[in-house]
Amino acid sequence: MTDMSAILDDIASAMAQETGRGRVADYIPELGKVDPGHFGIAVVSADGSMASAGDAALPFSIQSVSKVFTLALALGQQGDKCWTRVGREPSGDPFNSIVQLEADDGIPRNPLINAGAIVVSDILLAERSVDEAVEAILGFVRRAAGDEGIGVDAAVASSERDTGFRNRALAHFMRAAGNLHHDPEETLAVYFRQCAIAMSCEQLARAGRMFAFAGHTAPGSAELITPARARRVNSLMLTCGHYDGSGEFAFEVGLPGKSGVGGGILAVAPGKASIAVWSPGLNAVGNSKLGTMALEMLARETGWSVFGGL
Amino acid sequence: MTDMSAILDDIASAMAQETGRGRVADYIPELGKVDPGHFGIAVVSADGSMASAGDAALPFSIQSVSKVFTLALALGQQGDKCWTRVGREPSGDPFNSIVQLEADDGIPRNPLINAGAIVVSDILLAERSVDEAVEAILGFVRRAAGDEGIGVDAAVASSERDTGFRNRALAHFMRAAGNLHHDPEETLAVYFRQCAIAMSCEQLARAGRMFAFAGHTAPGSAELITPARARRVNSLMLTCGHYDGSGEFAFEVGLPGKSGVGGGILAVAPGKASIAVWSPGLNAVGNSKLGTMALEMLARETGWSVFGGL
Amino acid sequence: MTDMSAILDDIASAMAQETGRGRVADYIPELGKVDPGHFGIAVVSADGSMASAGDAALPFSIQSVSKVFTLALALGQQGDKCWTRVGREPSGDPFNSIVQLEADDGIPRNPLINAGAIVVSDILLAERSVDEAVEAILGFVRRAAGDEGIGVDAAVASSERDTGFRNRALAHFMRAAGNLHHDPEETLAVYFRQCAIAMSCEQLARAGRMFAFAGHTAPGSAELITPARARRVNSLMLTCGHYDGSGEFAFEVGLPGKSGVGGGILAVAPGKASIAVWSPGLNAVGNSKLGTMALEMLARETGWSVFGGL
Amino acid sequence: MTDMSAILDDIASAMAQETGRGRVADYIPELGKVDPGHFGIAVVSADGSMASAGDAALPFSIQSVSKVFTLALALGQQGDKCWTRVGREPSGDPFNSIVQLEADDGIPRNPLINAGAIVVSDILLAERSVDEAVEAILGFVRRAAGDEGIGVDAAVASSERDTGFRNRALAHFMRAAGNLHHDPEETLAVYFRQCAIAMSCEQLARAGRMFAFAGHTAPGSAELITPARARRVNSLMLTCGHYDGSGEFAFEVGLPGKSGVGGGILAVAPGKASIAVWSPGLNAVGNSKLGTMALEMLARETGWSVFGGL
Repeated sequence: MTDMSAILDDIASAMAQETGRGRVADYIPELGKVDPGHFGIAVVSADGSMASAGDAALPFSIQSVSKVFTLALALGQQGDKCWTRVGREPSGDPFNSIVQLEADDGIPRNPLINAGAIVVSDILLAERSVDEAVEAILGFVRRAAGDEGIGVDAAVASSERDTGFRNRALAHFMRAAGNLHHDPEETLAVYFRQCAIAMSCEQLARAGRMFAFAGHTAPGSAELITPARARRVNSLMLTCGHYDGSGEFAFEVGLPGKSGVGGGILAVAPGKASIAVWSPGLNAVGNSKLGTMALEMLARETGWSVFGGL
Repeated sequence: MTDMSAILDDIASAMAQETGRGRVADYIPELGKVDPGHFGIAVVSADGSMASAGDAALPFSIQSVSKVFTLALALGQQGDKCWTRVGREPSGDPFNSIVQLEADDGIPRNPLINAGAIVVSDILLAERSVDEAVEAILGFVRRAAGDEGIGVDAAVASSERDTGFRNRALAHFMRAAGNLHHDPEETLAVYFRQCAIAMSCEQLARAGRMFAFAGHTAPGSAELITPARARRVNSLMLTCGHYDGSGEFAFEVGLPGKSGVGGGILAVAPGKASIAVWSPGLNAVGNSKLGTMALEMLARETGWSVFGGL
Repeated sequence: MTDMSAILDDIASAMAQETGRGRVADYIPELGKVDPGHFGIAVVSADGSMASAGDAALPFSIQSVSKVFTLALALGQQGDKCWTRVGREPSGDPFNSIVQLEADDGIPRNPLINAGAIVVSDILLAERSVDEAVEAILGFVRRAAGDEGIGVDAAVASSERDTGFRNRALAHFMRAAGNLHHDPEETLAVYFRQCAIAMSCEQLARAGRMFAFAGHTAPGSAELITPARARRVNSLMLTCGHYDGSGEFAFEVGLPGKSGVGGGILAVAPGKASIAVWSPGLNAVGNSKLGTMALEMLARETGWSVFGGL
Repeated sequence: MTDMSAILDDIASAMAQETGRGRVADYIPELGKVDPGHFGIAVVSADGSMASAGDAALPFSIQSVSKVFTLALALGQQGDKCWTRVGREPSGDPFNSIVQLEADDGIPRNPLINAGAIVVSDILLAERSVDEAVEAILGFVRRAAGDEGIGVDAAVASSERDTGFRNRALAHFMRAAGNLHHDPEETLAVYFRQCAIAMSCEQLARAGRMFAFAGHTAPGSAELITPARARRVNSLMLTCGHYDGSGEFAFEVGLPGKSGVGGGILAVAPGKASIAVWSPGLNAVGNSKLGTMALEMLARETGWSVFGGL
């Protein structure tokens, strides 16, 4: 797809010239080692074609982007029952806030903040061991991406486990409120490993096709999730996908998306494209700085904003 | 447009059979007098045609739906300078919460909660008297709707003024923080009167065309606002338009929208339609109960969700 | 009383040498004009004798110290019924916080923070005009001090009224919650004027005798308030008298006390002395800096801490 | 001491006739097994004499009363350095609230709420193993009580450990904020065991003598803590000793005190008496219901309120 390749090359060139690249997350030591100079972008269009630019084939830690995959998987297994344990409203709080949990008796506001994603991991542990739950998640992501090579970065997972005190606070708090059904350390073992899944932009864009194309990974393929579920995950990405910067992202980019502190963002133009972008430096609210800028450029060039064309 | 008329008739019939209609807001006494039995819906499609059903020609108090019009007007006058005085993030708090204001030094989270809309009214008072500001708002809404007959319901405005202690608390709090530039009672005089604007579903759907059609009120007409501004107001409606039920509305309906405690909702299908619905009974989070259900049905029938087709 | 005079002279000398005197409150412009160099202290002992040092005869704006007098007066008029409208717990919030009010449905945590004192003013307005309520307060304070010369500083009262937006926010918020029974502007008219009462340290120490001496203003005089009421006001002063510095004051001084942003503090050594101190510069939590230091010295010298002797 | 014995007998008789005895804490299962019918009271007067009534010789779980002993011990070891890690202000929040911790970057408001006491346990772990820290605490309490028979109830300790998810949340949160210096599970191991110390009213009243008598356990004995430290622990007990009922306790009883969910309360009449009371049923804010009533009676009979005599 020539046009898209040209657009992505332009974007990559523009990004290469940016000097303020944000700050690489270092509260997980292993993430702090990543070179801030990277930038990659990949787009799968409705006809199934892939275009990419920059470091689009280099794997990175998807971190919180994993939350949309575990959510889709949990909804497939337990359906609307999930919504008794986690809400669907934006939180207006930083990603790891515990205040909201106290106000709402241990029910996280939505599944895309840490507390909510930990509940989703707990749901996926039902009748499974930790290893089986992690395998189920990996299996789902591999199927979505059509790529058996996707795996967990063990060094990152171990780094998360060693430093994840704030997530432990969230987990124990929810356990005290009765909203975690397993030993918090087991639930967190799943959560830390799902966050440490490593993928390239190309792999991530492919894995996101189900959200962009009404549950399908390719034209004519079988549904991986139902169209209604794809729409609903998209709505959550738009309202809650970027923590306390969700409103800003909707305002400037206008696409459902989910960011991770590894610097990756998955964005979805429903019916049109699945997009993955990666650059490790973060902005003030914890989302990839160049990644967000690149998506603004792409939305402007393509008119893909869900809020209206050019 | 035969098809749309048929769809709306079906919806109106279904709504007529609903027994649980929610509770009419009565904290503004004048609103409490409205018959909960009403239901109306109106849709203006991309070709400019209007379809409607039920009490679509009956005027009601638009209340907080006015916030999208004052926002569009203020952005037209002061542009991005507005964003120094009001944020763009969902609030995760009820519509009249004052907690967030204290945490954020008097800067409301977004322009679609009461505190934010009061700031917008204050912006519109710049170099205007109260009467002039109200006239400017009415003039803008009339132009948008193409209807000079739209006005303020004086009895409702006076009822709001007599009972608006919570809004006074918000206004004085922001004045103390330096984020209101006029006497709070003057700013509130504008705010109470804009909330008391009375419109029918048909008038409201016409007034919303600029958001649905990239700033235009009709095919080929001049821009009333820029396409970028229309997109941005739409994004705010989607993330913040229904107070603490915004996530739920995005999840179930999938369209930008703004509700008011009078029971009206303006919804926007970008590029496709401007929709107004009205039924006075409210659900637990303060949005029209039947209005929300009707929009869910409409989105299901038309596949207009911005998050993906059928 | 020779010994006490010597102690107070020592304290005044020590304070005269202090260079860091804190910051004079200037959010009420009239208060901002006061010379930060002032320091006065006065002590009435159990035998009725008065000792003083420094600017002890100079009147200053008692501001929030007035809250203990209006509380004592309101308890005398309505008794324990007052406690249905205001709590008795420390607040853990700054003096003018509105967050707590929202969490507790408009019931202030205690009568010594602004919101609580505004409720007390509202209680004193029952069956009285604003002027009558202010006269009742002045009459009570004059009787307590045995001094008919005590009055309201009109310039300060007017300065408070012109700038009291935060207090207006509190008042309107409580009116919305049904916990103010009069027009908020009338209640605030009482409140602003009581805060603007001007007294010298000597007058204030005399007015505080009823708290120190089980309700009596002098040995053998009639009770102005009951002993139980004196004890209870003392307990509130100890737990809540210094806003977010109440714990610190109890820890360092060990006496019930109430501070005002005018730089005055009334402190009570039950059964032993009524103490008033004044220095306009405030510390980080809004209490008189030198005043607090002077009371620490006095408590150390006398062993008057309620928490145990030397 | 005849008089005191008579007073205590009267109180015990009155309490025996109370039918509403509150609710025994059952979130720690082992505590839920205690018979709510118990009531005991013991008073050590300034001359060293002991009087008691009811079940004053029966051991119970002192729970949070342990916090004043660990605080006194930690202050003895690290002095004012402790105050860099824990505040001295009342919290205005329930005993196990995590909201305040988030607002204050992991610094608990005071050492008598759970979070603050966990920090104190962490301080006591410095250069000690868990067993050594527990032994140091027990040694201090035994010395204070003059009773080598005091120990930890292993069943209660184990019950706390199995169910202490909320305390784990607090601990991990503070670890994330850098305010815990050891593995949270180790710090909690100390904390859970100190809470499970079992003492009778007579033992507890003896252990509290150092707070009542300026650091001494008996007339003429050596100081166990300095007089200044005794005063300061007393001030913290008065402002913060009963969670969100601290103001109420000061108002009604007027003595420094510390309650535990086991139903015990230690109260201090500085210079006059050390008092222990026990009854397992709790009131709405989590303090012993009959224990509080008994202390109100005792304060009324004796005029011991620190806020003024009869």
